[in-house]
Amino acid sequence: MGNRGTVHLSWLDRFLANLGERGRELIRLPAADVPPLERSCRLAEALVSEKGEASGTALAHALLTSCSTLDATDRANFYRFLASHFEPDEARLSAAAAAYLEKPSAEQARALAVAAEPPRQELLRRMNMAPGATAALIAIRKDVLRLCAGEPGLKPLEADLRHVLTAWFNRGFLELRRIDWNTPAVMLEKLIAYEAVHEIDGWEDLRRRLGPDRRCFGFFHPRLSDEPLIFVEVALHKGMAGAIAPLIDRNAPVSASSEWDTAIFYSISNCQEGLRGISFGNFLIKQVVEELKTELPNLRRFATLSPVPGFSKWLAAHLAHEEVEIASGLEPDEKQVLLAAAGMLPGDDVETALKSILEKDGWWQETDCLSVLQPILMRLCALYLTETRDGKGPGDYVARFHLGNGARLESINWLGNTAPRGMAESFGMMVNYLYDPDLIEINHESFVHQGTVARSAEVETLLQPHAATPPQSANRIGRIVPFARQPKKKQPRASLAE
Amino acid sequence: MGNRGTVHLSWLDRFLANLGERGRELIRLPAADVPPLERSCRLAEALVSEKGEASGTALAHALLTSCSTLDATDRANFYRFLASHFEPDEARLSAAAAAYLEKPSAEQARALAVAAEPPRQELLRRMNMAPGATAALIAIRKDVLRLCAGEPGLKPLEADLRHVLTAWFNRGFLELRRIDWNTPAVMLEKLIAYEAVHEIDGWEDLRRRLGPDRRCFGFFHPRLSDEPLIFVEVALHKGMAGAIAPLIDRNAPVSASSEWDTAIFYSISNCQEGLRGISFGNFLIKQVVEELKTELPNLRRFATLSPVPGFSKWLAAHLAHEEVEIASGLEPDEKQVLLAAAGMLPGDDVETALKSILEKDGWWQETDCLSVLQPILMRLCALYLTETRDGKGPGDYVARFHLGNGARLESINWLGNTAPRGMAESFGMMVNYLYDPDLIEINHESFVHQGTVARSAEVETLLQPHAATPPQSANRIGRIVPFARQPKKKQPRASLAE
Amino acid sequence: MGNRGTVHLSWLDRFLANLGERGRELIRLPAADVPPLERSCRLAEALVSEKGEASGTALAHALLTSCSTLDATDRANFYRFLASHFEPDEARLSAAAAAYLEKPSAEQARALAVAAEPPRQELLRRMNMAPGATAALIAIRKDVLRLCAGEPGLKPLEADLRHVLTAWFNRGFLELRRIDWNTPAVMLEKLIAYEAVHEIDGWEDLRRRLGPDRRCFGFFHPRLSDEPLIFVEVALHKGMAGAIAPLIDRNAPVSASSEWDTAIFYSISNCQEGLRGISFGNFLIKQVVEELKTELPNLRRFATLSPVPGFSKWLAAHLAHEEVEIASGLEPDEKQVLLAAAGMLPGDDVETALKSILEKDGWWQETDCLSVLQPILMRLCALYLTETRDGKGPGDYVARFHLGNGARLESINWLGNTAPRGMAESFGMMVNYLYDPDLIEINHESFVHQGTVARSAEVETLLQPHAATPPQSANRIGRIVPFARQPKKKQPRASLAE
Amino acid sequence: MGNRGTVHLSWLDRFLANLGERGRELIRLPAADVPPLERSCRLAEALVSEKGEASGTALAHALLTSCSTLDATDRANFYRFLASHFEPDEARLSAAAAAYLEKPSAEQARALAVAAEPPRQELLRRMNMAPGATAALIAIRKDVLRLCAGEPGLKPLEADLRHVLTAWFNRGFLELRRIDWNTPAVMLEKLIAYEAVHEIDGWEDLRRRLGPDRRCFGFFHPRLSDEPLIFVEVALHKGMAGAIAPLIDRNAPVSASSEWDTAIFYSISNCQEGLRGISFGNFLIKQVVEELKTELPNLRRFATLSPVPGFSKWLAAHLAHEEVEIASGLEPDEKQVLLAAAGMLPGDDVETALKSILEKDGWWQETDCLSVLQPILMRLCALYLTETRDGKGPGDYVARFHLGNGARLESINWLGNTAPRGMAESFGMMVNYLYDPDLIEINHESFVHQGTVARSAEVETLLQPHAATPPQSANRIGRIVPFARQPKKKQPRASLAE
Repeated sequence: MGNRGTVHLSWLDRFLANLGERGRELIRLPAADVPPLERSCRLAEALVSEKGEASGTALAHALLTSCSTLDATDRANFYRFLASHFEPDEARLSAAAAAYLEKPSAEQARALAVAAEPPRQELLRRMNMAPGATAALIAIRKDVLRLCAGEPGLKPLEADLRHVLTAWFNRGFLELRRIDWNTPAVMLEKLIAYEAVHEIDGWEDLRRRLGPDRRCFGFFHPRLSDEPLIFVEVALHKGMAGAIAPLIDRNAPVSASSEWDTAIFYSISNCQEGLRGISFGNFLIKQVVEELKTELPNLRRFATLSPVPGFSKWLAAHLAHEEVEIASGLEPDEKQVLLAAAGMLPGDDVETALKSILEKDGWWQETDCLSVLQPILMRLCALYLTETRDGKGPGDYVARFHLGNGARLESINWLGNTAPRGMAESFGMMVNYLYDPDLIEINHESFVHQGTVARSAEVETLLQPHAATPPQSANRIGRIVPFARQPKKKQPRASLAE
Repeated sequence: MGNRGTVHLSWLDRFLANLGERGRELIRLPAADVPPLERSCRLAEALVSEKGEASGTALAHALLTSCSTLDATDRANFYRFLASHFEPDEARLSAAAAAYLEKPSAEQARALAVAAEPPRQELLRRMNMAPGATAALIAIRKDVLRLCAGEPGLKPLEADLRHVLTAWFNRGFLELRRIDWNTPAVMLEKLIAYEAVHEIDGWEDLRRRLGPDRRCFGFFHPRLSDEPLIFVEVALHKGMAGAIAPLIDRNAPVSASSEWDTAIFYSISNCQEGLRGISFGNFLIKQVVEELKTELPNLRRFATLSPVPGFSKWLAAHLAHEEVEIASGLEPDEKQVLLAAAGMLPGDDVETALKSILEKDGWWQETDCLSVLQPILMRLCALYLTETRDGKGPGDYVARFHLGNGARLESINWLGNTAPRGMAESFGMMVNYLYDPDLIEINHESFVHQGTVARSAEVETLLQPHAATPPQSANRIGRIVPFARQPKKKQPRASLAE
Repeated sequence: MGNRGTVHLSWLDRFLANLGERGRELIRLPAADVPPLERSCRLAEALVSEKGEASGTALAHALLTSCSTLDATDRANFYRFLASHFEPDEARLSAAAAAYLEKPSAEQARALAVAAEPPRQELLRRMNMAPGATAALIAIRKDVLRLCAGEPGLKPLEADLRHVLTAWFNRGFLELRRIDWNTPAVMLEKLIAYEAVHEIDGWEDLRRRLGPDRRCFGFFHPRLSDEPLIFVEVALHKGMAGAIAPLIDRNAPVSASSEWDTAIFYSISNCQEGLRGISFGNFLIKQVVEELKTELPNLRRFATLSPVPGFSKWLAAHLAHEEVEIASGLEPDEKQVLLAAAGMLPGDDVETALKSILEKDGWWQETDCLSVLQPILMRLCALYLTETRDGKGPGDYVARFHLGNGARLESINWLGNTAPRGMAESFGMMVNYLYDPDLIEINHESFVHQGTVARSAEVETLLQPHAATPPQSANRIGRIVPFARQPKKKQPRASLAE
Repeated sequence: MGNRGTVHLSWLDRFLANLGERGRELIRLPAADVPPLERSCRLAEALVSEKGEASGTALAHALLTSCSTLDATDRANFYRFLASHFEPDEARLSAAAAAYLEKPSAEQARALAVAAEPPRQELLRRMNMAPGATAALIAIRKDVLRLCAGEPGLKPLEADLRHVLTAWFNRGFLELRRIDWNTPAVMLEKLIAYEAVHEIDGWEDLRRRLGPDRRCFGFFHPRLSDEPLIFVEVALHKGMAGAIAPLIDRNAPVSASSEWDTAIFYSISNCQEGLRGISFGNFLIKQVVEELKTELPNLRRFATLSPVPGFSKWLAAHLAHEEVEIASGLEPDEKQVLLAAAGMLPGDDVETALKSILEKDGWWQETDCLSVLQPILMRLCALYLTETRDGKGPGDYVARFHLGNGARLESINWLGNTAPRGMAESFGMMVNYLYDPDLIEINHESFVHQGTVARSAEVETLLQPHAATPPQSANRIGRIVPFARQPKKKQPRASLAE
């Protein structure tokens, strides 16, 4: 039944407990009274120097146990020790480099690669032999990533950690698992802890997110079987969803399965800080799309509901540099509404008014100027998300992630998220990125190679210049672009001037 | 319901099936009519060149599928392609080498390591993203190892395969599992196939080896969950076991658990040819010892029952070089027995007689000279297994494995294995190596550093020179050594001259 | 992959969906427009009458589906239908009865038993063939038990339900499982719902109850695998625990395993109202004791921490009947304290004062008279719990359960539970019942046959008559209300004066 | 480790080991020197008499352990003890019977049922509380069924065993599981042991039967989880299969899934002799049909390939009674062939010749008369399988099983099974019974109520009388019936005279 064959790992503790005094000495376990930092350093040296590998597991276990007793200062010192020792042998590497330069060949290149590999990598691989070591190494990298910023000397350690973790967390070793209310509590509480986008406020909140019209999937690594690496939350929905609140309301009614035609990916959270830069998200969404199609053949669309976390900063910067011009796109009464809302006088600068309004807390609750603001902000958001920036594409990291995966910018939703963070970062905008399996590769290629953002007709409309539209034009939004194109100042931002 | 969270991997097939024509083109899937070898090569190039990683899994899957259609010739050609392409960029590597030589530093060394890593490694890592890829890569290495011997040009590929597989099959990712009659048949039939030491002749044989007084454990990798990497077979026994036949007799009675005081490790088999050189055996025995102690606290001893696969070759070589002298250790009647058995005349050379006897099939069934042969061969075997060879230790690979693990040479058993292979390789000798947790580290260190073979008093006795023992001495074996020490020829083998 | 062999039960739905019109008719599925009550009754008749069994599963499924659509009124009517039909055939039973009376024999008795079995039992057994039926039948019994009280006509149905459920929930089919934080959430939320003794206030509360120094075990039935039948909560403890609050405090620190010497069973909850009267509790505690001994060999004692739910009612009744006399056991100043606390005058009746005090909310928070009350109430509680009542033993149902299991009354704890329900029912008393494997059978026999309550020396002391008791009464306690038997003045009760 | 929730049942052994001397006495465990038979009887009495249930599990365990030590004689004596004791109390039952006769009512009937239940049933239910008891009780019934035949006094025990087992093995508690090469060996070897229709000759045979184009399903009971109760073997096939040999040939090629349109149920084996009369087979086939439809939507037909085990006996009886007439249906040259094959003279009786031929070993290998025999035997087989026998239907038990399930007699296959048993019992005939979900209920009803055998047009043709068919008629088989209808002797068997 189940995993019956698995044998418990505590054998190591028993093994170490059984070592005689002389045995301890021989596998170079420092005596009990050696201070922890010195002990850790000596164990690391013993582990990497060990000729016969025979005691590697025991040494690795002793080293990790020793590390776990270090206080913050000693831990940082131990990292410094790891980062500054265990470099390749200089003489050997120099010789190999010289040999290669003298006569470059595949064989010499290989010899060079071998000579250039720092022994630190072998140390990390040997550390991994101990029970629980993979999690411990991820935790060390988390620490080191944090410390690195102020202490570049730790970078060699960080780089080697990344090197071995990248090998071990190869996509081929990850397992997709569904997470639901049948999942053990010990795992579920990690969802609560790790959710990074829309906070889960306790078990009742969680229960709704795992309800019958929701799905949750995560990637797991066999060595970290109770820890998700990344997980995605999905709402099964009738039609596209433009606002987040109804999706995460714990009292929302459960919709009938017969109604579902769209899967909304409304949250993706990376769980392991120590695996930063080793990405799983792009695999995850595509694989989940296929799983959902198999389970629910009636689903027609797969889209995200995502924030635009860089929008308010981008707009602030552009307003500050006076690179935005909206006045010419507005009717006089509209201008008046903005100026009044900003407490400014008729004739004052509307761009300044806009800036001033958006700096006020709760501006979105003052309904009188919302109808004027909406087309302005939506058009600006569309501009932000479709910048090509000389082939690099838009700067928003969420946009880059989905566009890089081959998704299409489908809709921009006004006041889709009025939670404080959503307002502060995205001015409340929520965006749908559509994963259309037929177009995913085309979109991906265009984005990667030209920075071109695939977009729906709806978004295209937001972007259209109003050309010769009469002032009465129903589509007032159209008017913003041309003014942006004719900047007040000398240096128009390319991004607004396309 | 069991592992309900796991989601089937066939999503990839569905994903590929859903790709439109243009999508296929864009992820660079060659058209259907491209010949398989070209197709495989182009896919490999696409996979490693892919900027955005987005289609890596799909490409990897397509590549492996394509490879599986290659015939033997094309497969070899594909390996040649892999081995000769994907080298590090020469200009970049030269620059890095020069920079390092100019000013050696940790940072430059790191840059050099990065530049020296062949893109082939990244290719292999990306191939691993596809379902089933790890097994496929192991199979490729198996092929390449075989071809390598005659074709050194494949070595770069073999080396890179070994590099990535070593990272992935780190001890930390292996799982020890007990194998017994409750194990699925699909796994059990692999034991029959992989058993390398004492052949398992069908299911009834296997059933006895998994009986109540037997244990079997294997290491498994999460990505190869139905495939053991290595497994060990253990008999629970009263006292040491000196002969293999009773242990593998399918009709042997099951002993009572109350009698067990010794665990006999009588067979260890590596299962994956493609993982050659990535060793697991030393971990396996130690961990199994701890498991058995926990399950059966009454066990007092842990020992192997092992062949001496290099003994007959070693002895033949020494006899051929006339480096063995036994005559002076024998009584006249003993000499007579040997000469008669060899069909030789009184006064002929007894060493030649020995050689001649051992070349006859079934010599061990002619009982009249066995009592003379036994002390001679046992002493010679003890000599063989305790050679230090200038610190390198004995040459027998089985001995080296266990001695290197810290085991002690405990007993040498006369006619312990009379199966044809056992007689041919080991002259029927079976050896117990004792794993004594208290001494394992000491033994290991002495062996690794000085080539010293830890041995029991019993073995020591076999090795003792007879000194001034009177001819009537009960211990006739003792007499062999001094004569070996006074070689007939000029060049005594150090191994016999200790 | 886990339980891979299991096949989903939805085959029945598919089977029914595949039945042609004529097939439906033939297995007597009523047409769609038959009202649900009539439909249910007709299906029940069809199910029991079916000659060939061939369609039993389909009919049972249809019947349960039909029942699930009944409203409360119709459901009661359907129960009436079941209870009033399906009686044994009168003619046949009369004939069997007459035959037995004429010539009693084993064979005739058997024939009589067969004739007397109501077809309703066969109906219930056939209903059980449908997926989910066991849970549905338990739910029906829950309903019927409730309705029965006011409607004795339903008793035959209740009796037959109990008959078949008793057979199916035989101890032999129950499985003991540990429940902890690794258990799926869907099961854990049932603990919250079912906990009957000390309410679990949400997930954080639950988490503490499943912490490292707690254990929880339940009995499960294979057909109801997500539903515990009964579960017990255990605290691992240093020494006996006398108060419940520290055990269920969600912020209580986790104790170290090295300290644990006692297992405290502090809550047992039956979960299935519909299985009332089919008891599992006695098996549960004994089996859990053995499990804990195996896991934690250092545990020395196994005891409950239990309420005394009948104490306050019992005391109120005795006070009302003036069967309690306490005055003679008190010092003058003690009397004064009681009278003052009751707002009465010196010379007033102290028994009346006691009654009056205990009727006040929060009496236990007025510390000045607590020291006087404590010995009085503890002695009274000891008397309550050791009454023999002509061999029947004490009336408290919790006491009867544990004493009937062979436990010993070990300690009575003052203010062990000051929660409202604990104060209202038990005057705050918590009792330890000790499960001593060596004595369990002796205690059980004495209790069952003589109503004798096994008790510790500590409890015995509470019960002892005071030393210099007047000659009139050897055993002053004997009459239940000790002081009522004794002259009110002269001699304080030893038990109150110690 | 694996099924972590499940707790091992050995707690009972520990509990018993912990009982003190006095405890053993009190739960009425006989002393160690009481002979096993007496010990078993006394334990049985203790178990059923136990007032408090508290020690039921321990006593049940002791009883089963004691039983397991009985030799065959004592075991039979113990069964006699069980069968002759534990009858209902005569006085109580008489009183209940009299009360019912005086005033029959539901309530009195219930009281009567309670009084009539033999305490033996409660004894059996309590025995079941011990670990392993269900299997032990099944084994006891197997014994008792065997002994019963010659010893009717054991019938009460058999009847009560059947009563409790029927309740416990209710269809609702059975679980359908697929069995394949991933199933543990311990289960698979049971298939080899239990296969009752077409012997499985070792593991290689079994492997083929579990190959990719085969399916095997069994019913399991949660308490007997390693023991199938019944299993069915299925071949996935293109078209109907008429012969068994190709299906069970271990070297048969595996067919491609694209070809499968028919599922052939070629073997059904009941595994538990002790559950005889508690049938599962009818559920099994229908449920497996639904499972297969779900897995393989392309399957169009579901049919058995079954023996006709009563055919040769039936024909021998009819030939012996001269109730078969075939002469008038044969051409002169055909008669001659038969007579010659039988070594008889022209003009001799062809029916006698037929009898004589069929008595010869290997008659079916003498090809010259096979073409004459084939139509004769096929028509006779069709007659045998369609007899109505006054509404009872044909006597063949395999036919009755499938026809009772609602299957249709689809094809009769000449020389479908030439294995010795197949020839001896069925004259080599193999029959397809078709399970057509649309007709299953209709067929079932007609069979159960009128004994009518649903049959295909093909079978119908075999049955048609030839009437005035010219002698050259292509369909020579037609001629047999009329002669059977005009019997030579006075008393034709109704079965042949339809």
